[in-house]
Amino acid sequence: MTETPTAAGGTTSSGTPAIDRFTCVIPAGGVGSRLWPLSRAKAPKFLLDLTGSGDSLLRATWNRLAPIAPPERIMVVTGNAHRDSVVEQLPGLLPDNLVTESEPKDSSAAIGLAAALLELRDPDAILGSFAADHVIRGSVLFQRAVRTAVLAADRGYIATIGIHPGHPATGFGYIKCGSARGDLAAFDVYDVEEFVEKPDEATARDYLARGGYLWNAGMFIARASVLLDQMALTEPELVAALREIAEAWSSPKRAAVARERLWPNLKKIAIDYSVAEPAAAAGKMVCVAAHFEWDDVGDFASIADLLTRGRKGDLAVLGDGAQVLSDASSGIVVSESDRLVALVGMQDVVVVDTPDVLLVTSKQHAQDVKGLVTRMKVSGGGHLL
Amino acid sequence: MTETPTAAGGTTSSGTPAIDRFTCVIPAGGVGSRLWPLSRAKAPKFLLDLTGSGDSLLRATWNRLAPIAPPERIMVVTGNAHRDSVVEQLPGLLPDNLVTESEPKDSSAAIGLAAALLELRDPDAILGSFAADHVIRGSVLFQRAVRTAVLAADRGYIATIGIHPGHPATGFGYIKCGSARGDLAAFDVYDVEEFVEKPDEATARDYLARGGYLWNAGMFIARASVLLDQMALTEPELVAALREIAEAWSSPKRAAVARERLWPNLKKIAIDYSVAEPAAAAGKMVCVAAHFEWDDVGDFASIADLLTRGRKGDLAVLGDGAQVLSDASSGIVVSESDRLVALVGMQDVVVVDTPDVLLVTSKQHAQDVKGLVTRMKVSGGGHLL
Repeated sequence: MTETPTAAGGTTSSGTPAIDRFTCVIPAGGVGSRLWPLSRAKAPKFLLDLTGSGDSLLRATWNRLAPIAPPERIMVVTGNAHRDSVVEQLPGLLPDNLVTESEPKDSSAAIGLAAALLELRDPDAILGSFAADHVIRGSVLFQRAVRTAVLAADRGYIATIGIHPGHPATGFGYIKCGSARGDLAAFDVYDVEEFVEKPDEATARDYLARGGYLWNAGMFIARASVLLDQMALTEPELVAALREIAEAWSSPKRAAVARERLWPNLKKIAIDYSVAEPAAAAGKMVCVAAHFEWDDVGDFASIADLLTRGRKGDLAVLGDGAQVLSDASSGIVVSESDRLVALVGMQDVVVVDTPDVLLVTSKQHAQDVKGLVTRMKVSGGGHLL
Repeated sequence: MTETPTAAGGTTSSGTPAIDRFTCVIPAGGVGSRLWPLSRAKAPKFLLDLTGSGDSLLRATWNRLAPIAPPERIMVVTGNAHRDSVVEQLPGLLPDNLVTESEPKDSSAAIGLAAALLELRDPDAILGSFAADHVIRGSVLFQRAVRTAVLAADRGYIATIGIHPGHPATGFGYIKCGSARGDLAAFDVYDVEEFVEKPDEATARDYLARGGYLWNAGMFIARASVLLDQMALTEPELVAALREIAEAWSSPKRAAVARERLWPNLKKIAIDYSVAEPAAAAGKMVCVAAHFEWDDVGDFASIADLLTRGRKGDLAVLGDGAQVLSDASSGIVVSESDRLVALVGMQDVVVVDTPDVLLVTSKQHAQDVKGLVTRMKVSGGGHLL
C-alpha cells in the first residue's frame, strides 16, 4: 500500500507554498439530536457552548483554525436558516466564504461544493474539512497535524487526521493504519488500510491492545481537484452537478442553477462513503496520527466526561447561572435557568433544564435521546425540536 | 387488659348523645420537608393538592369530617403564618374554631389546647384529632370507624383508629391489638396492647403474617377532659399551662397570657408520648380496626403509589398543566409548570418541577429529601425552603 496515488501523486506544486494554498472548510450542519433539548433546529449543536468556555463550538473551531489560515481562507458551509447566527458568531468571516445551502444534502455535497468553488479560485487549492461541532484541546498539536496533512495533500494524497485513542471508545469509528510513510513526513504519517465502523467494547479493547488503530475524527485534507476527482469515481453525477453549481455561483444564474434546478436533486451521501473509503481501498488515503484531545460531543455523556475531564467523583455542570445542590459523584446538569437544581441519591443522571423542556435521563441512556426526538417528530412535538 | 379505665370508665353520658358532643380537631402543622420543593414553609403539605383531586389535603380532611360534625364542631389548629390560607381554603370554618399558634409546639400542645378550649365549652365534650395532611379513601368506612370510636371515648377510653395493613409498610408505626372489646362495640374494637415503632421489612412481614397489627394513623378520639387528665399524668406543667391559656383565650388577657408568657415555654412533645403510649400501658387505650385506605403521604414515593394506586407499569403525574413524555413504567413527575418533561430510560425517578427549584431523586431516595432540606437550612438556602 505504498504506491503513489494515481490522481496527482508527485505533482509539482505551483510556486506558492502548499500552506498558502490551503483553505479550511467548516461544514456547519447537523442539529445534534442527541443533545436535545439543549440543541434545537434553531440552535443546533455547533452554535452552542458545550464546554463552558464562553465560545460556541463553531467559534472555537474558527479560533483553532485562525493560526493556520487567514480569514480569506476560512470558509463556512451552512444552512440558510443559520446564516445570521453564523455571521454573528464569526465577524471575521468574509461574505464570499459563507456558503449557504438551501436544504441539507449531507457532507459530500457540502464539502464537495466548497471544493468546486475553491478549484475555480485556484486549480492548486488545497482544502481541509473540519466539523464545526467537535471539541479539541491542544491547539499546537492540532496545527502541527494539519500542516503535515497539507503537505501530504499537496503531493496528491487525501489525508485524514487520526487521534490516538485515550480509551476503548465504542462511539467513534476507527482508522486502521498501515505502513509509515517516511516519504511524506519524518513522523506520524501512515497509509490508511481501512476505516472501521464503531466497534463493540471487546473489539475496541482489542484495537487498543494491538495498536495501529486511531479514532476517525472525520477530518479530510486534499487538493480540491483530487477530492472531487476521487468523488467522481463513485458519484459522477453529484460531482458534475457540484461543479456546475460552482460555475454559476458568482453569476446571476446562481439561484436558477443552484437553488432551484440542481441542489434539490443532489444525492445525499456522507463523504466517508463517496471519498474516504474508496480512496483508502485505492491506496490514496494517508493518515496523520495526532495526540491532541478530541471529542465529537455526541451526547450528554460525552459532555459530562469532557467537563470533568474523565475524573471520577465529579458531577459536571454546564450553564452560566447554574445553581446545583447535589450528592452525586457523576452525571451532568445543564442549566439554562437560574433555578436551583437539587439532586438526591442520583448517580450518572443527566438533567437538562431549559425554559420550555426539562430532560431527565442517564449517561447510560444518553444515546437514546435521539430516539425520543425521532418519535416527537412523528407524534407532533415538533415545535419543541 | 380488659379492666375499665380509671379516669372516666363507665361514666354516664350527659343527656346529649355522644356524637352531638363530638368535635373534630384538625391540627394543621408541619411543612412536610420530604415533599420539598413542592412543600415550602409558605405552602406546607396540608395546603397542597397531592392527589390531583383539586382539593388541598386540608380541604379534603374538612370534607371528610363534614358528614360527621357540623361546622360549629370542626376546629383547626394552625400556625399564625397559615391563618389566611386556612381561612381561604375552609370558608365554612367558624372564627371561634380557628386556633392559631404563635409558634409550633408539637402535637401535645396543639391538640391539648383544643381539648382545653372544648372542655371549657362543655365538660362532656369529646374530641377527635385528625391530621390535616393525610389521604383517606373510603369515607363511609371512615365515618363508621369514627362513630364507633366516639362511643368508646364517651365511655372514658382514649380511642384510636388503626388501619388494616395492605402491605408490610416500613414507613408507618403499628398498633398491636389485644382482646376484642365486645362490651364497647359488637365489632372491630380492641384493647391496644402497645404501639410499636416503624419496623424493618422482615418485622413488618411478620406482623402481617401473625395478624393483630394495624397501622397507626395517629388519630385519637377521647373526652377532652380524659385526654388532658391522661396527659397531666406525665406532663402536669404542660397541661396546667394549656388550661390556663384556654381560660384566658376568650378574654383580653389572651395575648399576655398565651402568646407571651406561656406558649413560648411549652414543652414540645408528640401526643404519642404524652398520651397514647402511657394510656396504652395503663389499659385505657382502645383501637377501632378500619378498612379504609389511608396514607400519610410522607414522601414522593407515597404520592407515586397513591396516584397509581400501587399499579406497576405506570408513571405517576401530578400537576394541572403537566406535559410528560416518558418511557418510564414507574416513578413520578410533579409539575408546577407547563414545560414538557421528557424522561428517557429512567425508572423510579422522582422529578419535581417548580418555578424556582427542580428536584430530581428516586423513589428509593425519597426519604432523603428531608436530609437535603436540613442541610439547606444550615448552608443558607433557606429562602427556597
